[in-house]
Amino acid sequence: MLLILPMRIDIITVVPDILRSPFEASILKRAIDKGIVEVHIHNLRDYTDKSYNQVDDYQFGGGAGMVLMIEPIDKCISTLKSQREYDEVIYMTPDGKTMNQKMANGLSLLNNVIILCGHYKGVDQRVRDLFITKEISIGDYVLSGGELGAAVLCDTVIRLIPGVLNNETSALTDTFQDNLLAPPVYTRPAEYKGYKVPDILLSGNFPEIETWREDEAYKRTELLRPDLLNE
Amino acid sequence: MLLILPMRIDIITVVPDILRSPFEASILKRAIDKGIVEVHIHNLRDYTDKSYNQVDDYQFGGGAGMVLMIEPIDKCISTLKSQREYDEVIYMTPDGKTMNQKMANGLSLLNNVIILCGHYKGVDQRVRDLFITKEISIGDYVLSGGELGAAVLCDTVIRLIPGVLNNETSALTDTFQDNLLAPPVYTRPAEYKGYKVPDILLSGNFPEIETWREDEAYKRTELLRPDLLNE
Repeated sequence: MLLILPMRIDIITVVPDILRSPFEASILKRAIDKGIVEVHIHNLRDYTDKSYNQVDDYQFGGGAGMVLMIEPIDKCISTLKSQREYDEVIYMTPDGKTMNQKMANGLSLLNNVIILCGHYKGVDQRVRDLFITKEISIGDYVLSGGELGAAVLCDTVIRLIPGVLNNETSALTDTFQDNLLAPPVYTRPAEYKGYKVPDILLSGNFPEIETWREDEAYKRTELLRPDLLNE
Repeated sequence: MLLILPMRIDIITVVPDILRSPFEASILKRAIDKGIVEVHIHNLRDYTDKSYNQVDDYQFGGGAGMVLMIEPIDKCISTLKSQREYDEVIYMTPDGKTMNQKMANGLSLLNNVIILCGHYKGVDQRVRDLFITKEISIGDYVLSGGELGAAVLCDTVIRLIPGVLNNETSALTDTFQDNLLAPPVYTRPAEYKGYKVPDILLSGNFPEIETWREDEAYKRTELLRPDLLNE
């Protein structure tokens, strides 16, 4: 009998409230309910000894924006590491390596992962130097904090784990899995206010439909994202 | 007296639950509370006449994954458009134009925006052809649906609207605003378990600190994202 342990994701944040609903709905909730993945959200404020649960402070050298302090982060990460081995300690940051589907495929094979969310102006650089094994960005834009980035990473990764989606082929035919954008899709009605579905899709000729879809995927990729074809 | 109307964002989704908490915490909540932005979330299931509130159906031509039907989307968008003018009707999709900080700056100037979230295999192509004015991707990876993408877009855009952040310079010095990654930041304590903050930041010599930060920002960009320097 093959025993598969659930993937365990520990998210460290100063705004745990942001992360509630993404894990309480849809595919992420089902993955958790099925026992395929465990997601634990840790409030960084539970790891500080300072008054008012302080976890951030002004930047050395002056400037706008608060910085998350090293001590509570050290305490939280050390506590988790004393309980089990982690494959990666990830920091969500816009200057990290930009996430793509290939990276998501790789992350979906890990067992235990810590994700640290920055907030305000980020974390003390010593946190990054000492504790972080991988810095990931979800794109070239700035968010209020790493929380939504962590939710995006979890969603992208968790749906790839076998058993999460009802039909595994559904993820395999997604955009990017073969460096092609997905072809257009249509559903009923076949005609809506005069706008018709392409005849081929109603033909029942599945080999021809397959060819049409490949052609459309290629055409769309060439038009919108020619860079993907050269990878 | 200058009257500034709040930016209005209408999000159309089949999983409104995912979107609850991101708008009920932190900066997005404050922006809404201050009246700088209005976010209205519409459940697509409220716009269908079908039994069981059906909003999706199988793909024509076969294949895994359900497709959102045109009729309820048409009804929802038409209802909104009959109430006010919209600058853009955005569809979140991995084959859209990849969002970056420049695009976010542009979007932050709009007044009324509709964001349609795909789910499952996406929306009927006729929706995209007929109603959508802008297709946006938050990155080269696949999510369970457009909801987290919409939350990311809103966060990125809303924090740029004047008055949302306490200190406007905080957004201006962010990564990407000048095609440079942000320099490292440090906060107290000056020494932690033997790891010290760079002396320069404790010097009180602000012109030199500024020069150091510019150098570090440039070095980090050259190391991690040389592509940004050529834009």
